[in-house]
Order: sequence, then C-alpha cells, then structure tokens
Amino acid sequence: MNLRTDLALEERENRNPKGPSRGVVINKKNIDNTVITRIEIKNQKAAEGLKKPVGRYITLESEDFKLSDPESIKKASYLLKSELLKLMKDLSFSSALIVGLGNRSITSDSLGPKVVAKTMVTRHIKNYMPGHLDSDILPVSAISPGVLGITGIETNDIIGAVSQKLKPQLVILIDALASSSPGRLATTIQITDTGISPGSGVGNNRGEISRYTLNTPVIAIGVPTVVDLLSIVRGGNPDTPDSSYEKDYFVTPKEIDRLIENLSKIIANGINLSLHKNIDLEYIESFIS
Amino acid sequence: MNLRTDLALEERENRNPKGPSRGVVINKKNIDNTVITRIEIKNQKAAEGLKKPVGRYITLESEDFKLSDPESIKKASYLLKSELLKLMKDLSFSSALIVGLGNRSITSDSLGPKVVAKTMVTRHIKNYMPGHLDSDILPVSAISPGVLGITGIETNDIIGAVSQKLKPQLVILIDALASSSPGRLATTIQITDTGISPGSGVGNNRGEISRYTLNTPVIAIGVPTVVDLLSIVRGGNPDTPDSSYEKDYFVTPKEIDRLIENLSKIIANGINLSLHKNIDLEYIESFIS
Amino acid sequence: MNLRTDLALEERENRNPKGPSRGVVINKKNIDNTVITRIEIKNQKAAEGLKKPVGRYITLESEDFKLSDPESIKKASYLLKSELLKLMKDLSFSSALIVGLGNRSITSDSLGPKVVAKTMVTRHIKNYMPGHLDSDILPVSAISPGVLGITGIETNDIIGAVSQKLKPQLVILIDALASSSPGRLATTIQITDTGISPGSGVGNNRGEISRYTLNTPVIAIGVPTVVDLLSIVRGGNPDTPDSSYEKDYFVTPKEIDRLIENLSKIIANGINLSLHKNIDLEYIESFIS
Amino acid sequence: MNLRTDLALEERENRNPKGPSRGVVINKKNIDNTVITRIEIKNQKAAEGLKKPVGRYITLESEDFKLSDPESIKKASYLLKSELLKLMKDLSFSSALIVGLGNRSITSDSLGPKVVAKTMVTRHIKNYMPGHLDSDILPVSAISPGVLGITGIETNDIIGAVSQKLKPQLVILIDALASSSPGRLATTIQITDTGISPGSGVGNNRGEISRYTLNTPVIAIGVPTVVDLLSIVRGGNPDTPDSSYEKDYFVTPKEIDRLIENLSKIIANGINLSLHKNIDLEYIESFIS
Repeated sequence: MNLRTDLALEERENRNPKGPSRGVVINKKNIDNTVITRIEIKNQKAAEGLKKPVGRYITLESEDFKLSDPESIKKASYLLKSELLKLMKDLSFSSALIVGLGNRSITSDSLGPKVVAKTMVTRHIKNYMPGHLDSDILPVSAISPGVLGITGIETNDIIGAVSQKLKPQLVILIDALASSSPGRLATTIQITDTGISPGSGVGNNRGEISRYTLNTPVIAIGVPTVVDLLSIVRGGNPDTPDSSYEKDYFVTPKEIDRLIENLSKIIANGINLSLHKNIDLEYIESFIS
Repeated sequence: MNLRTDLALEERENRNPKGPSRGVVINKKNIDNTVITRIEIKNQKAAEGLKKPVGRYITLESEDFKLSDPESIKKASYLLKSELLKLMKDLSFSSALIVGLGNRSITSDSLGPKVVAKTMVTRHIKNYMPGHLDSDILPVSAISPGVLGITGIETNDIIGAVSQKLKPQLVILIDALASSSPGRLATTIQITDTGISPGSGVGNNRGEISRYTLNTPVIAIGVPTVVDLLSIVRGGNPDTPDSSYEKDYFVTPKEIDRLIENLSKIIANGINLSLHKNIDLEYIESFIS
Repeated sequence: MNLRTDLALEERENRNPKGPSRGVVINKKNIDNTVITRIEIKNQKAAEGLKKPVGRYITLESEDFKLSDPESIKKASYLLKSELLKLMKDLSFSSALIVGLGNRSITSDSLGPKVVAKTMVTRHIKNYMPGHLDSDILPVSAISPGVLGITGIETNDIIGAVSQKLKPQLVILIDALASSSPGRLATTIQITDTGISPGSGVGNNRGEISRYTLNTPVIAIGVPTVVDLLSIVRGGNPDTPDSSYEKDYFVTPKEIDRLIENLSKIIANGINLSLHKNIDLEYIESFIS
Repeated sequence: MNLRTDLALEERENRNPKGPSRGVVINKKNIDNTVITRIEIKNQKAAEGLKKPVGRYITLESEDFKLSDPESIKKASYLLKSELLKLMKDLSFSSALIVGLGNRSITSDSLGPKVVAKTMVTRHIKNYMPGHLDSDILPVSAISPGVLGITGIETNDIIGAVSQKLKPQLVILIDALASSSPGRLATTIQITDTGISPGSGVGNNRGEISRYTLNTPVIAIGVPTVVDLLSIVRGGNPDTPDSSYEKDYFVTPKEIDRLIENLSKIIANGINLSLHKNIDLEYIESFIS
C-alpha cells in the first residue's frame, strides 16, 4: 500500500509492520511521556527497501508537544536538545547555518521560517564585535530560502551557494513533513543526519540537500503537519488510484496555527541549546527578544 | 448517517438522496459553467427534517471559483451579484451592515474578516461629507466581531448590540462553513435569507443571528472551507462514533490560503455590486484601494 | 505655541513650564529607574486651561520600557500594575471589558489590538464552565472595535452598544497616543480615569468615551507612538501655520515595530495582574498561550 | 551641511544648490505630471564630490505615486517601464534575477520583499515546462535575502553566492532609501545602473552590490521611505552634532503602509513590463494571481 510519508518510522510501519528488517536497527524507549524511536538504516539495500537514505533517524512522539504552557515547552525543548546532541556527538564543528525550508505564507508549510525567526543568530556579532559574546556562543547564521514556486530557483541551489560561501561546519535544515497518520501531526519530531532527500533512498536526487551535496555535515529536523487525504482514503481502500482527486486535499489538526507556533519554539530552543554550551532558556529569551 | 455540513444542499443529499421532500422545493440550472441550486424550505416540518430553518437557500457551484485571474473573478462576482439580487428583490433597504464572522488569524476561518476588508464602507462618508458620494451609493458599515474564544463575548450579542445602535435596514453575514464533501470546498457559495443558526432548524437557538433575533432582514453568505475528517471516515464506515479522534482534524484544499483570498474578492465584489446601483468593478477597485 | 499632544503631562509643560496652576495638583517621584508623575485636574477651569477633562493622570516614564528582555518586562509590568491599582482603589467591580482602540494594520496605531491579543479573556469560561477557574479570576471580555475609516461606524458607538449589552463594571481602553516630544515615544505610559476625549477638556464631545458616556468607570491606558512633524518644526519656529505640509508626516522611533510589541506585553501584563488577584506572570503566560 | 540621503539628486541639491558641477550632467523634464531628472556622474572626481559612484541616475518625482486607483498605478508603471528601458538599452540580457532588499517585517523597510512578491517569476517554468510560456517571456528568478541582523550574513554575500550559481545576465535590486526631505517620501523613484554602494562614491566598499562585485550588469530601484529626524533638525540648525538623539527617529508619511503597498505595485509592474516584451498589466495580473 503506497501511503505518502516523510517519516522513516512510518515507512517502516507501513511496509513491514511486524517482522525484522535486515540492515535496519530499531530501538524504542519512553522518556517523560515521550516515545523515542531510534532507527538506523545501515546499508543501501535497506535504504532502498524503506525509500530513505542510509543514516540515523530519531523520532520523538508525544501528545505534550501540543501544549503551549512554558513548562511543557521547556520539557520538550530539553528532550530535543538531548537527542540532537546524540546526532552531533561525532561531529566537530564551531559554526552552523540554520535553514528554514518551506513557504512562510502557507500555515502548514511555515515551520522552517518560523524556527529561523526564533534562532539565536550570532555570526555577525562574533564577526563585528568579537568580544561581545562569550566564547561558548558559536557563530550561527540563518536563512529562509523560500520555495521554487516563489523564487524560481531550486532550494538546494540557494542553500548550496550560500553554504559554499560561508563554509559553515554544520548545516541544520528544518522542514514541515507529510505523515500518513493524522495522530502523528504536530505530535512527532523526526531528526536525522541524512538531510532532505525528496523522492527516495537512493543518493544524488534532484533536490537532495545532504552532507554529500553540501560537503558539510547536515542535520534535518522535521515535523509532520499534513496528511494527504489520499492516504486516509487508501487506508480504507488500498486500490484508490494515485490520480484520485483526494491527492489535492490535506488533513491538518484543527488548531494547526497554534501548534506550528508551538513546535517552532520547541525546535528553535532545542537547536539553540544544543549548539551553544552553558546557556538556558532564559538566556535564549533575552537574546531573541 | 450523521455527516456535519452547513450546506442545505448537502443536508438534503445526505438525508434523502433521491426522493422528493414534502415542503422542500428544489430548482437546479446551469449558467456559465456554474450549477445554481435554489432550495426553498417552506414549512417547519420540512425545516426539522433538514435541520435548517424555513427560508431560501441558493447554492452556486463551480470549479471556476478557484481561478484567480481577473476575468474569472469578474464572471463569478457578477453571477453572485445576480443571485444576491434575487434574495434582495422583496426587501426595501437603504442602508446595510456587513458582518465578517470568524477568526482572522486562522486561515480556514478568515473568510468573513477578509471580505470586510474589501467591502466598500461608505456610512461615515455619507454622514460627514454628504455631497461627496453619488446618491446611488448607500451608507454601508462593516464589522468583524471576532470569535467567542478571543473576545469572551457571544458573537450574536456583539452583532445584536451594534445592529440595535445603527439600525441598518439589511444585515449581510459572511462566514466560513463546513461541508461533508471535499469536492465542495472553495467551489461552493451558499446564500440564504435565513441567517446563521448553529445547531438546528428550530428557531430561537443560542447563537442564532437572523431576522428574528435582529429585527432586520438578514442575508448570509457562506463558503465551505473545511470538511471534518470524521465525515470522510464515516463515508466509508457509517458506524464511526462521534467521539472518534477524527473529529479533531480538518480536510482542506492544499491551496487554502490562495483560495480564501480569491473567494473573499468574489464575495466582496458581489456584495458591493448588489448594494450600490450603477457601479462596476473598476469603480469598486478605485474606491477600495 | 500649539503643539499636538495627548499627554496631560506635556500639555502642562508646553503651556506653563514653570509656575503653579490653580486647580492642578502635581506630584512626581522616582521608582526603580522610572519617573512617575501624578497630575490631578481638580476643576473645570483647570480642565479648560489644560484642554484635558477633570480627573487623575498618572504618567510613567522610563527608557527601560524599550527593553525586551524578560526581566525588564517583568519589572515594568509590576510597576504598571501598582499604578493601575491606585486608580482602581475606589472602584468596586467584579467584571471588566478591555477595549483595544486603533487600526491593527498600521504599526504605530496597533497598540490597542495587540494588547487585546495578550489579555486574559475569561468571561466565556466563567459563564460556560463555572467551576473551571478560581474565584479570584474575574470575568473579562475584550474587543478591538476598529476605526471609523474601516468600519464606517464611530468607535464610541460600537463600544457604547457592546458595553450596554454586557454591563461590565469597569471598562479599560488602550490607545496609541501622540506626543510633542520624540524622547517620550515608547518610553511613556499614561493612565487616567478620565477616558478618551478627543479634542478638549470640556465634556460631551463627539467621540468621547468616558464614565459619563458609558455609565461605567473607565480607565484609559495610552502610550505615545508618534510625534507630528509639525510639532518638531514648530519647536524651532512657533509661527509655522497649521496647514503646513509637515502635518502629514509622523516621527517614530526607528524600532517602532519591536517597541510596540514590547509595550503591548507590559500593558497586557499590567492589566491582567491588576484585575485578577493572586496571579503572577507565569500563570498569565500559561493562560494566554 | 551633512544631511543623510540615498538620492543622487538630493546630494547634488544639498551640496551645490545652484552652480554647475564639473563631471556631472543634469537633464530635467516634465512628463505627465512627473518631473524626470537624469543625472550622469561622469568621472571619479565628480563621484567623490557627490559621494555617489560614477554612473547614471534617473529620478522620477510625482505626487501621483501616492494614488492607489488602477489608472494612476497604470500610468506610473508605464512611465517607470519607459525609464528602465533607457538604462537597459545598451545591455544585452536574456535572464534576470530580482533582489528585494530590506526587512520584510519593518513597514518602512519592506519595499524590496513586497516587490519580489509581485514579480513575474518564470525561471522554473521555463526550465521544467519549456513550451508553456511564450518566447517573449524571459526566465526571471527572485529572492529576498533578508538583513544582516536577522540572518547573520552580509546581504552582498548571499546575493553574490546566488548570482554566481545562477549566472543571471541582469540583476535588479529594489530597496527602501533615506531622503533628507519629507516631501520626497513615497513620491520619488530613483533608478540607477550603479547598484547599491553604502557609504561613498569610491568603489570596493564593504557591502557594495554592483556590476563590479557581481560581474553582471546591475540596476537598482529605490524609493525614499524615511527621513532621519536629524536631517530635519539640521535643516534649521546646521550645527546639530552627529551623536544627537534625533538620529534614532524616523520621519515617515502618515499613510506609510498604504504608500509602500502602492509603490511596490508600480515598481513590480515597471520591472515586469520592461523585462518581457509584448505583455500588458492584464497579462501580469493573471500571471501573478
């Protein structure tokens, strides 16, 4: 059954709900009301099976990601920080470029630009006022490159060009994703070291943004914000054709505007906390405001 | 099967797809790529059957309502004008209050406030600069009262209070509606002389905004912008319970932002053209800008 | 010299910089880096002299109102709360209506609607879920009535109508003001028990919104966000005529967007803290989000 | 007297109001209620005198640029087209990149991003659907690179990187400018073939964006939207020091929001009309919508 999803976790569930997969290591645990699943796709064969590139995928799932009160956001932010640090552990970097993918004027696609707006951007301060920030604060820059339909330019070309110019030692991409299950919308954060690779698990795609295309380590953070209506219908009737009119409709949570605002805080906090040592949410809030 | 819809047309289809209904007169015709269905609910018994108040409902359906080019918008605007004039024919009014219902900061609910922003508001000019506008131009005012969750005030109370103060001779309400069928989203405009009556066809509801509660003729204009996911699932499985999680999800067209902008132009044009004699879209555009 | 200002403090400075005024009591003190001036206009003669109605005016002045970090906002919020409580001391009320005046889509005029968006609106919760909130939490409602040019309706008519319907026991108005001095922009908060009375100190004006027109105690909170360029030019050349082209230009601080966002937080916090007993900023933040 | 301005025309007026300047050719004429001044700075000495690079500057001045009705916008758009074609006459190009400079969330600085949103972006359609557009339609792309304080990246670095990747044969920059005279705000459009060169007339500045830094012909289009309050005060008192507090305040027209929206239409139209042959405003409107 062909259900559209950008989550490695769902690809695996939808394809092979029960049995083990050769070349795929899965590890699941519960922390603080959150289910954390670590999937590692170890070889190209497994990648082709799951239509996702070789690499690590960490999925955090919690209904609490929908809560907007300061305590809940704090808890989620530190959880995300701790999982991001796991992906960063083997990397050595002292600068980063944050990239907010998506269309800022379409609510369900605006997660990336909204995270960028809450990121601690420090590169210019480090450059022009060198003593002004503590040495624990890394130089971080951030762009929202827009989408092909608005710029006429492939997003990976803009990111590639800017990255080549700045030579950041780490690129973090943020994007809104598709899921095949409404229950995962706004309750799931996927982080991966594979970058964004629209279409399939096999490298060198048009549009791929990854350590291979940028020559820099890449971490991608995504949250599913829409389900294709086709996926819902197909859940009940697997034979629904690809051309069915349902492909033009999205399913979103009723409160999508508030939920995306919320998740953009959690993700920006998680990024800020994981990049700079010895800072807390109060420091971030003072910096951003 | 209990599918949520604000369209009289769909209530009828969903309840009694084939046979005739006592007390309901239906008339359908095609004009200019648009299906126009006129439904008249003639008595209280029929009203209870369809859970809609006694009155007239005109539904315009066209895929062309999704087109944003000036020609398509013009065609749709004049079609709407012509149907609005049918509802206005027996009314005698020389002033109007336009009310944009809904939450301006939730895309799918923002149709009303967006129409208000494109309405020719003239009341203050007629009052303070009496000779400035032609006598064909009626005094028109417009408000967007917000929603209960933001104001803490029942919307009908705000409208009732303002209407009692201004004593307009016609009130036009604009609201985003729910449909039970994705294909009707952003392709359907319902106009009715019954007002907005959440819940059922039997008068005096909490929240009702109608000629009975305002003591003024009311025309309501609505466009379905969402389908409850529950309606979709129930289409396949009529026994899905009301408490099912799908009730917290909406189905919308992928381009909902653009489509609502588009429909707000058509509806504002239709209202402006039907209220003021001898004006055209160019005059409206010069006035609004 | 005729300089436009909505601040009682500046009217007094501009008219009578040194000597005492009969019927005007002035008291100035410094608290926490903030100058607090209390002016009481005691009789109609003094009111005519200062072109402001009889009543109390409290002005808080501090460069710190421009700071966006959480600590600075907290300090300013509690200072404002404490001065608001002074105006509320002799009032007995157990419900309130908050009114955000001004045009939400013009930055320098958007203070009122922005405060409304951060107000704890509770009336509907108290009504429909009576036990849900602590008894210390009063029923509060809030509207942004828009401006004459957009609605075609006099703002005081909308407020009067809604107030008559809801019968709140206190009305709080928030508005962006004009000052005659750039240094006061975004650094000054005026609170008064006289309401808003465009034009002069003599009652019953067109547009007046006050305890006399609403039959309810009114507190008005204002922040100067613009200086008429004419006031600047006239500072250097008192003979500049009223019709001079400078009247069509505003002076604003370079960071007006950020400053208004900031002040809207301070004012909303101050209102929330003064209306409901035993709550703190954390409670407010959880409630609003 | 040191008044801040980005207009070559004002630099010349402020420095040398009467006499001729060696190396500067000036030509003034009236077309259709609009004063068009063509200034050519012919050599480096004259450039240093006027603090503007060698090149051509065309200034269009008209109170009509403030009018929002379709006829006025049409007239201004075709006037701008005709002057743009003069700067393009000696260039040979078959692709273009439009760059909207400035901060989209500060009204007075948002001109560039607003023009980008109304630009006919065609590059991706020409690439992926080659036959879909007429051969008169050139491939055009567009970006809004943001500002240093938000991205942490020098704007010229982003533009340089993207331009090097895409190799457009013409770059058009749009930016909000400073004037020294309130009367010029929103009534003046400056177009130049020198690019943007913050600071002085002498090449190779930090931040310069020009044919020399991009290796591509550059046209810059600017509209003054602010006057430094310092310039106003200095007009009356030339000895006001640079550090004076007035430098932190801007003078803008009262209707700045509407005026910028208006000018963004005129400029986008002018660009669209001058880049693509044989199209009119109706075609543009259908394309953009």
